[in-house]
Amino acid sequence: MAMSMERVERLKEIGRKAGIDAFLVSSEKNMRYLAGFSVLALERFAGIIIPVETGVPIVMVPKLEEEKVKENSVFEEIRSYDDSENPAKLLKQVVGELRLENAAFGVEGTLPFKSYRMLVECSPRIGIEDASVFFSQLRSVKSDEELKRMEKAASIVAKGIKAGIDFIKPGVSELAISFQIEKTIKENGGESIPFCIVLSGSNSALPHGETSNRKVGRKDIVLMDVGAVYRGYYADITRAVFVGEATKMETKVYETVVRAQRAAIKAARSNVKAGEVDRAARKIIEDAGYGEYFTHRTGHGLGLEVHEEPYIASGNNTVLRPGMTFTVEPGIYLVGKFGVRVEDDIVISTSEARLLSHLSRKLLIV
Amino acid sequence: MAMSMERVERLKEIGRKAGIDAFLVSSEKNMRYLAGFSVLALERFAGIIIPVETGVPIVMVPKLEEEKVKENSVFEEIRSYDDSENPAKLLKQVVGELRLENAAFGVEGTLPFKSYRMLVECSPRIGIEDASVFFSQLRSVKSDEELKRMEKAASIVAKGIKAGIDFIKPGVSELAISFQIEKTIKENGGESIPFCIVLSGSNSALPHGETSNRKVGRKDIVLMDVGAVYRGYYADITRAVFVGEATKMETKVYETVVRAQRAAIKAARSNVKAGEVDRAARKIIEDAGYGEYFTHRTGHGLGLEVHEEPYIASGNNTVLRPGMTFTVEPGIYLVGKFGVRVEDDIVISTSEARLLSHLSRKLLIV
Repeated sequence: MAMSMERVERLKEIGRKAGIDAFLVSSEKNMRYLAGFSVLALERFAGIIIPVETGVPIVMVPKLEEEKVKENSVFEEIRSYDDSENPAKLLKQVVGELRLENAAFGVEGTLPFKSYRMLVECSPRIGIEDASVFFSQLRSVKSDEELKRMEKAASIVAKGIKAGIDFIKPGVSELAISFQIEKTIKENGGESIPFCIVLSGSNSALPHGETSNRKVGRKDIVLMDVGAVYRGYYADITRAVFVGEATKMETKVYETVVRAQRAAIKAARSNVKAGEVDRAARKIIEDAGYGEYFTHRTGHGLGLEVHEEPYIASGNNTVLRPGMTFTVEPGIYLVGKFGVRVEDDIVISTSEARLLSHLSRKLLIV
Repeated sequence: MAMSMERVERLKEIGRKAGIDAFLVSSEKNMRYLAGFSVLALERFAGIIIPVETGVPIVMVPKLEEEKVKENSVFEEIRSYDDSENPAKLLKQVVGELRLENAAFGVEGTLPFKSYRMLVECSPRIGIEDASVFFSQLRSVKSDEELKRMEKAASIVAKGIKAGIDFIKPGVSELAISFQIEKTIKENGGESIPFCIVLSGSNSALPHGETSNRKVGRKDIVLMDVGAVYRGYYADITRAVFVGEATKMETKVYETVVRAQRAAIKAARSNVKAGEVDRAARKIIEDAGYGEYFTHRTGHGLGLEVHEEPYIASGNNTVLRPGMTFTVEPGIYLVGKFGVRVEDDIVISTSEARLLSHLSRKLLIV
């Protein structure tokens, strides 16, 4: 409770400096972060108006969420509408009550066009700007409690991947391996598993491939990319293992990726720019001659969402600060042949970055 | 392939009548429906511009999705941008190429504010309106192939719930039951299980409660609400069973809900308004004295999404037509005590609606 109110005060402070009079918060994650409650049915409008100067935050939710929201919300002003009512009317009423008809509103970049229109129609004098960056700033630096949850999530995912590795042999399907991983994660307290991707053989060369019924061959690579949540917080880990043998080329690619990851983790320090971490990984892969096959960024922030700030991408000038958490996941994708990605989660500290995930990165032949 | 091009032609026809010059399609489901491909990383911009009169549709995707999109897209014009490039630039270029600088654009209500801004900034003369209703119209009437997938999805979910029921006994946790259901669904070909909610005892009185570690008591009710996907299409079924015994009151509530569901299914016919189906269910529950405890709409459309048109809600004047598919799920929630909901999936036909889900609704004591 106390934690969330502190977050709101920090948001207000940011708003004050940026000339924002009020925030409309409507994404599930930001509502959860600021107000402590989760809303599920987001095809119905739900949101919180947080005035920066005067007035208390007001929560608007569909009637059927009201009970649960009341139980968990740090804000006491909760208004609801039922399925026969128009949420636009409620929003307009709340905007009027808070005297925000002339306000500059900060909204999320994810705000659906439909809700945006509702806000515009509250008053012709309302201003609306994308305040995503402020929410991201706020959320990107984790508290000790958040880090504990992420580390626990990572230990759960690591157990899942280990179980997956133990299960791999020629003839088992990608789906069966993925199921083994998910089962282990659930049994160890993972509250959800938003993705558990297992790609074998040439499927591994698709950075965003999908788990299929394909059966693992006698000399395949098997890549596992798994994200799971513990008390709201994500871990995201990828490992690739070889079945039967690893060819010379596979070995070279694998070792290059691991070296690139190590270089990136070493570069990830407080006051360094996110883009420099990407550079460190990319340089190793380029020098090994695989530059054109590393087709994505080196990593992404992690927390309540699986993709958040800071993005570890070329040209990102975000300065890393202690408490920031992200994945480091260089990869080399040889389309038609195979792909390798190795991914861990780290937190920036005052000296070297600290690994949140702990799982061997040695080349493994099963 | 052929199917999707027909869908695009129907969309264009709708656009022509509505004075829309071009559509910007960017939701995962609508892209899948119209173009045949799936984009996963939606925090990066992806979209299709479909000009209504002249020019061919152009697909814009992040570089790392390009391979997969090319494999599956019915549209041949595919442009990509990598993580170092700004998608706004690509969008502006495509708008220019299609000469849509003066166009009235139809967008989705879910279009993120960030993408909306990108579109606005392409040209000061662009008009933007919410075209959600047209996409919904298009998708709400299912083809035979879509219905087959939904029926298959429903048979898979039914197997899962049966397995869950067999597993229920005092002392097992909600999570363990939910895991049993999920396992069965996976083993039977379910490709994803976006929700598998198990609520026992007084938790069942929360229409949107969450599965917990709570152990089933000796005289609890256990409610299971499960949604799973088969080849992209949803089934969504809810059953409630009693452990040990059902009190007189529990029996009355259960029977009332089942009668309400039956009345709604009977009312669900071609040319009837969606709101009338809601009314039919609500009347039974009101007459039994529980009107105030039926706190949500009677159902929602189902297909590529778990919530889509038509919504079976009070006042919805959408006229039902053959091929429309939706859930019928009345409920009674006695907060602090227990709740009952019974949910099945149906398709409107030329005579009586047809059930897509087949699972006994008899009061069951385990």
